[in-house]
Amino acid sequence: HPTSCASMAELMSVLFFHTMRYRVSDPKGASADRFILSKGHAAPILYAVWAEAGLFDKSELLNLRKIGNDLEGHPTPRLNFIDVATGSLGQGLSVACGMAYVGQYYDKADYKTYCLIGDGESAEGSVWEALSFAGIKKLRNLCAIFDINRLGQSEPTAFQHQMDVYKARLESFGFNALVVDGHDVEALCKAFHEVQGSDKPTAILAKTYKGRGFPGIEDQENWHGKPLGAKAAEVVAALEARIKNNGPTTAKITEPADDTPEVDITNVTLASAPHYTLGEKIATRAAYGTALAKLAESCPRVVALDGDTKNSTFSNSMLKVDPSRYIECFIAEQNLIGVGIGLACRDRAVVFCSTFAAFFTRAFDQLRMGAISQTNINCVGSHAGISIGEDGPSQMALEDIAMFRSIPTATVFYPSDAVSTERACELAANTKGICFIRTSRPPTTVIYANDEKFQIGKAHVVRKSSHDVALVIGAGITMEEARNAAESLATEKNINVRILDPFTIKPLDNEAIVKNAKECGGRIVVVEDHYPQGG
Amino acid sequence: HPTSCASMAELMSVLFFHTMRYRVSDPKGASADRFILSKGHAAPILYAVWAEAGLFDKSELLNLRKIGNDLEGHPTPRLNFIDVATGSLGQGLSVACGMAYVGQYYDKADYKTYCLIGDGESAEGSVWEALSFAGIKKLRNLCAIFDINRLGQSEPTAFQHQMDVYKARLESFGFNALVVDGHDVEALCKAFHEVQGSDKPTAILAKTYKGRGFPGIEDQENWHGKPLGAKAAEVVAALEARIKNNGPTTAKITEPADDTPEVDITNVTLASAPHYTLGEKIATRAAYGTALAKLAESCPRVVALDGDTKNSTFSNSMLKVDPSRYIECFIAEQNLIGVGIGLACRDRAVVFCSTFAAFFTRAFDQLRMGAISQTNINCVGSHAGISIGEDGPSQMALEDIAMFRSIPTATVFYPSDAVSTERACELAANTKGICFIRTSRPPTTVIYANDEKFQIGKAHVVRKSSHDVALVIGAGITMEEARNAAESLATEKNINVRILDPFTIKPLDNEAIVKNAKECGGRIVVVEDHYPQGG
Repeated sequence: HPTSCASMAELMSVLFFHTMRYRVSDPKGASADRFILSKGHAAPILYAVWAEAGLFDKSELLNLRKIGNDLEGHPTPRLNFIDVATGSLGQGLSVACGMAYVGQYYDKADYKTYCLIGDGESAEGSVWEALSFAGIKKLRNLCAIFDINRLGQSEPTAFQHQMDVYKARLESFGFNALVVDGHDVEALCKAFHEVQGSDKPTAILAKTYKGRGFPGIEDQENWHGKPLGAKAAEVVAALEARIKNNGPTTAKITEPADDTPEVDITNVTLASAPHYTLGEKIATRAAYGTALAKLAESCPRVVALDGDTKNSTFSNSMLKVDPSRYIECFIAEQNLIGVGIGLACRDRAVVFCSTFAAFFTRAFDQLRMGAISQTNINCVGSHAGISIGEDGPSQMALEDIAMFRSIPTATVFYPSDAVSTERACELAANTKGICFIRTSRPPTTVIYANDEKFQIGKAHVVRKSSHDVALVIGAGITMEEARNAAESLATEKNINVRILDPFTIKPLDNEAIVKNAKECGGRIVVVEDHYPQGG
Repeated sequence: HPTSCASMAELMSVLFFHTMRYRVSDPKGASADRFILSKGHAAPILYAVWAEAGLFDKSELLNLRKIGNDLEGHPTPRLNFIDVATGSLGQGLSVACGMAYVGQYYDKADYKTYCLIGDGESAEGSVWEALSFAGIKKLRNLCAIFDINRLGQSEPTAFQHQMDVYKARLESFGFNALVVDGHDVEALCKAFHEVQGSDKPTAILAKTYKGRGFPGIEDQENWHGKPLGAKAAEVVAALEARIKNNGPTTAKITEPADDTPEVDITNVTLASAPHYTLGEKIATRAAYGTALAKLAESCPRVVALDGDTKNSTFSNSMLKVDPSRYIECFIAEQNLIGVGIGLACRDRAVVFCSTFAAFFTRAFDQLRMGAISQTNINCVGSHAGISIGEDGPSQMALEDIAMFRSIPTATVFYPSDAVSTERACELAANTKGICFIRTSRPPTTVIYANDEKFQIGKAHVVRKSSHDVALVIGAGITMEEARNAAESLATEKNINVRILDPFTIKPLDNEAIVKNAKECGGRIVVVEDHYPQGG
C-alpha cells in the first residue's frame, strides 16, 4: 500500500520523531505514549518508523509480507511494538479510547494516546461510536488523526477534501478539531502542540494526497494497494531527490514521564466464597452481578462496561463497589468491545463487558479482531435463549455460542447455577484470550455446594444412578428443565437418566461425555437453547 | 414499554392520521408511505395505531405478548403491516434508506419513508452510517424522526435534552434538521409538512418526555420497560381525562398516489449460459462479476451494493451494465446490509451485497435480524480463507461459514469453479431467505461443463474410480488442492480417492456424503479453509 503510506509520511515523522514520548528500548512501556494505526493497511510506514527509530534493523523491512515473517500486510501484536491488530477498518479509535480512559481516569498518568484513521474508514459507524464516547467522557489525552487523502480503494471518498464537513462533524461530536495541511511539517508540529491543555479530545484533520510525491501517481485513482511495478524506480528517485539529510536521524525522541503506577492483575479472586443455599433459585445473571462486585473488591483494576443494560445484566453491582470502575458505553456495542480491548492493553485492567448475549453479534468483527489482538477481555451475555419468551426473537441469543466458539482464543462458559457462575467469573478473570459467560434471565436452582470446585473443560455429573438409561446434557435453563424431567421420569415412570453439566462449551469435556455416555448405554440427549448450527 | 410509547403518542397520531398516505386495506401497498419503528420496543403504540386505523379489532390488542399471538414485544413481519423486524436497536434507519432509495431512484414514485428512532439507540454507529448514506445520496423522500425523551433504559442518555447537539450532528450529516416540541400536535403537523420539497433528507428532532402524561412517572428514571402495576389505574384515568373525542376517529387517512410501477422479480435467469473452457483458471470472485452482470441484463431490478471493495469482489461489473443499479455504500458494512434489506422489501429488488467475506461479521446483528425480517438478500463474500496469505488474518474469512450457517433462513453456497459460481448466483437470486456465496481470491480450475445442472443441497462427485480408498470433500480453493493431491496420489502412488464438491454447505447433501463414504470404505477427509468450529 505505497500510496496510502505516502499520504501520511509527514504525519508519522512528526509523531514519532517530534511529538510522541517513548523509549525505543521499551516500545510498550507503561508510561509511553500510545499509537494505534487504525488504517492497518498502511503497516509498511509504521514498520519503517520503528526501524528508523532503531527498534530493529532497516534491512528487516525487506521481509515485509514474506511467509514466516511477522511484518505482515496488516500489523498484529506478534510484533513487540503493536498493541492491537488492525486491518478491519474503523476499529482503532475505540481501542484508543479504552487506552486513553485508563490513562486519564485510572493511571492518572501523563501519557497520551494517538490514533491515525483513514478517511475511507471514517464511514464506519464504529468510528462515530468511538468519537461520541471520547467526547462524552472528555478524553483530553486522546488525539484522533484523520489522514484525509481523498481516495478510497475503488473510488474517491464521499467527502473527498471537504474539510469543513469533517470539521463540523468532529465538533458536533465533542472534539477540538484542527484542519491542517498534512504535508506541512511545521503546521503539524504546531497542531500537535495545541493538543496539550484542551479539556476536550483533539482531532487533527490532515488534508493530504494519496501517493504524495509519486510522479504521475499522486492524487490519482486506481493506485490503492498496488505495488508500483514499472513506476517504482522513478518514484524512488523522486523521493530520494527530496531527502536533505541522509541520516543518521538527528531527531531526539522525548522520554516518557514515567509516572504510571505499577498494577498487578494476576490471581484475581472472589473476595468471598459463593454463599447460597442448595435448592434456592437465583438467576445466573444476578450471580454475575455478585461475582463482579466480589472480584472488584479484591482487585482494584477490575472494571465493568455495559451498553445501557446494566440493570438487566446486573453489571450495575459495580456501582456499589466503586462507581468510577463502571463505564457506561451507552447503546453502542462495537465501541463497548473496542474500549474493553483498549482498557485491557498492556495489562492495565481486568475487563468485563456485558450486554444481552444477542447483542454481542453487533461486535463480531471487533471480537474476531480481538482474538488476533491477543486480548483478554471477558464478555458476559445475559438473556440467552428462548426463555425470555414474549419479548420475541430479536432479544434472544440463539447464535451466541456458535459465534464465540468460532473465535480462536475463546473460552465459552455456560454456567447452570449461581455457584458455578461465580466461579466462571473468577476463572474468566484469570484466563488468557476472550472469555464468554452466557447467563440466563429466569432464576435457576442452586445445584452446587458453595465449596464445589470448577475447572475449564471439566464437566460435572449432577444426577447419577447405577442404572441410567441415557445421558442428558443441559446447561443454564435447559439444565433446570432436564433436572425436572429426570425427576418426573424417575418418580412417575421409574426411569433413571444421568445428567451432565458441561460448565464450559469450549473447551468441551469430551472425556467425561464419552465415559458417561458409555455407562448410559450410548444414548445421549443434548438439550440446547440455541440454534442447532454451531451450538 | 408504556413510558417509551407515551413519549411518541403525538408523533404517531400525526404520522398515521395526518401525514402518511396509505390504505388500511393494503398496509404494505407498493405506493403506500413506509414506516419503520426502529425503536421496536415501542411496538404497543404501533399496534395501537393500526388498530385505531381499523386494520384489526382493538380487542386484539389485549393479546399483546401472549403466547401464540403475533403481537410480540417487538414487531416482526409475521404481522401484515410490518416490513422488517426491529428490536435490536439502531437498525431501522438503514432499512428505511434502502426503501427510500428504491422509491427515489428506481420506482421514481411519490411515496415517502418515515423512520422513528429512539434517542438511546442513536448512540449506535449504524445510525450514523445510515444518516451519512442518506445525506450522500440526497434521499429527499426520507424522514428520520428522533424521539428525544431524555431517558435510556438504565440512566439518562448522554445528551438528554441538548437539542442543539442533535441538530448540529444531523446538519453535519447532510440533513435538514428541525427541532420541534414532540407533544405539540400542530407543531408536528407543520414540521412534517416542511419535509416536502427539500432536496435533502429531513430529520424531525422531537423533544419529548418519557411517560408523558403519566402522573408521578413522566420524565422519571427507573420506568423503562416496566408495567405500571399499582399505578395503572391512576395513569389510565389521567389519560382518559385528556381525551376530548372518544371516537370513532374522524381523521381521514390520505390515499397514496398509486404511481409505483409494477415489477416482477421472479424467475431471474442468467442472460446467457456460463461460457468457459474445462481446465481454464478463473477466480470464483471474477465469475461472480460475470454472473451479476448477466442477471442484471435479464432482470431490470437486480441491484448490487458494495462497501468500497467493488474492484476486489468484482461487483463493479454492474457499472458496465447499468451504473444506476450499483450502490456504493462506502466502508460501512452494517448499513450495506441494512440498505440491502430495505431495497428488497415489498419485492422491489433482487439484491446482491458484496464485500470481503470476513467483513460480513461486521453486520452479523443485521443479518440475524434480517432472518427474523424474512429478507431475501444475497451476500457475496470474497477473499475467503487463508489463501489470501500475506495480507494477514484480519482480511481472511475463517468464521464466515459458521456465522451464516447459524442464521435460520440462510443458504450457504461455496462454489468451486466459475461454472458453479454463476449457477449459485442464479439460484440465489430466486431463493427465499438469506443466501451467502463464498468466493475465493486466487483462480481455480473450471471443472464443470457449461451445461452442468446445479441444485441447492445437491453435491457433485468430481473424481471417482471403482476402487477409491477415501472420500475427500473440498470446496473453493481446497477443491483445487484436493484435486491436485488426488492426481499426485494416483500417478505417484497408484492410490485412488473420490472427490465430492458439496456446492452448498447449508443445506449439506448428507445422502450423497453417506453413500459415497460407504463406497470408499467409510473413510472421509474434509479439507476446510475455515476454523474447525461451525465450518
